[in-house]
Amino acid sequence: MTSPNGTERGRRDGVPERVRPSRLTERVSTDREVLRRLLADVPVGHVGFVTENGQPYVIPTAISADGDNVLLHGSTGSRWMRLLATGVPVSLAVTALDGLLVARSAFESSMHYRSAVLFGRCAALEGEEKLAALDALTDALIPGRVAEVRRPSAKELAATIALRLTVEDWTVKVSAGQPDDLAEDVAGPAWAGVVPLVRHYPEALDAPDLRPGIGLPPSVRRLLQPENEPAG
Amino acid sequence: MTSPNGTERGRRDGVPERVRPSRLTERVSTDREVLRRLLADVPVGHVGFVTENGQPYVIPTAISADGDNVLLHGSTGSRWMRLLATGVPVSLAVTALDGLLVARSAFESSMHYRSAVLFGRCAALEGEEKLAALDALTDALIPGRVAEVRRPSAKELAATIALRLTVEDWTVKVSAGQPDDLAEDVAGPAWAGVVPLVRHYPEALDAPDLRPGIGLPPSVRRLLQPENEPAG
Repeated sequence: MTSPNGTERGRRDGVPERVRPSRLTERVSTDREVLRRLLADVPVGHVGFVTENGQPYVIPTAISADGDNVLLHGSTGSRWMRLLATGVPVSLAVTALDGLLVARSAFESSMHYRSAVLFGRCAALEGEEKLAALDALTDALIPGRVAEVRRPSAKELAATIALRLTVEDWTVKVSAGQPDDLAEDVAGPAWAGVVPLVRHYPEALDAPDLRPGIGLPPSVRRLLQPENEPAG
Repeated sequence: MTSPNGTERGRRDGVPERVRPSRLTERVSTDREVLRRLLADVPVGHVGFVTENGQPYVIPTAISADGDNVLLHGSTGSRWMRLLATGVPVSLAVTALDGLLVARSAFESSMHYRSAVLFGRCAALEGEEKLAALDALTDALIPGRVAEVRRPSAKELAATIALRLTVEDWTVKVSAGQPDDLAEDVAGPAWAGVVPLVRHYPEALDAPDLRPGIGLPPSVRRLLQPENEPAG
């Protein structure tokens, strides 16, 4: 997350230039578990690439972690999916906004967040790998849903591109601290603290064409439980 | 949002090539009010640009609508902010995930979302415009907060870059419908419907160094009211 209140505090060794943060290094995590947790928590990423004429382009897309890599999917009718499948360089940002950091000055006010930026290239998956990727993407959004629905037909598979982003570099930043106000601001009248942001699924609404007698499936019932809040 | 279940259904006239969607055109909104509402609802965008060596890069950043343009800010210590200030082409994606669209097949399952992709170039703001932009960014995150905190000092202003993204093109897609299952899937045993995703701020936690007797300010109390849920 860009933020105005950082300072340069030294650089890590051995970090590729393109992922070496220029500032706020105290917030950088090199812990792969933090990255894995973030990818598991957040169902949507923002993928950036460069079009044929040099224009940067960012699109939101569903994601699913695949070991240390990431799965994406889209329609064969999407020119951007077709471009990604050619293996052009991509950047994938995955961000969870976890709350507000309310300081006593505008300058020190910020957010609680976890932010990953991944770099690599995509390749299209085929056959069993493609089916497994689509299942993983379905279950990433609604765990356990694959076992409850009709899986893709041959026609649907032919209309779908499944991609694996092989991650070459990554960086993660975590902001989870307390306001860091100047002493004179702490002595002043302003409140400071943290306001957590919580996401939840309070209800499930039947489709208008749902046939009578069909109740909520286990996957959706689990989503409605408070401990299954998504992030992002 | 990329999705596998779209079909090509014609193209709009008069839409610049870089924002003309290649598919799912039935979901495209040309209503500027939808864009304005999305920008007002979502406090974080993902800005994409191309680095000097041709690498695409995506970073999350706080945003605030400024008429039909968008304000951003960051540290002068951020090389990406300095690059954006030079006026390189950028793409800004702003996405609200509003719920899950649970269909009877994996293929038709999707999300409810609002998604804008903006294109343009940034310019650094100075003087009164810079101060006004920083105020707007503070109030975009916590409406009314500017009136309660110390505003930036000269030193803090010197450490901050404020940018206005002048939007040249934009596109918005909205997915808010019902599952569109095949007749044979509707006749089957699977549930289908919509699961709305709700965000809220359930509580505000005092900073450890908060002085006794300082209560929650009006801006934070308003955030805790359910009708002031953020999106995104």
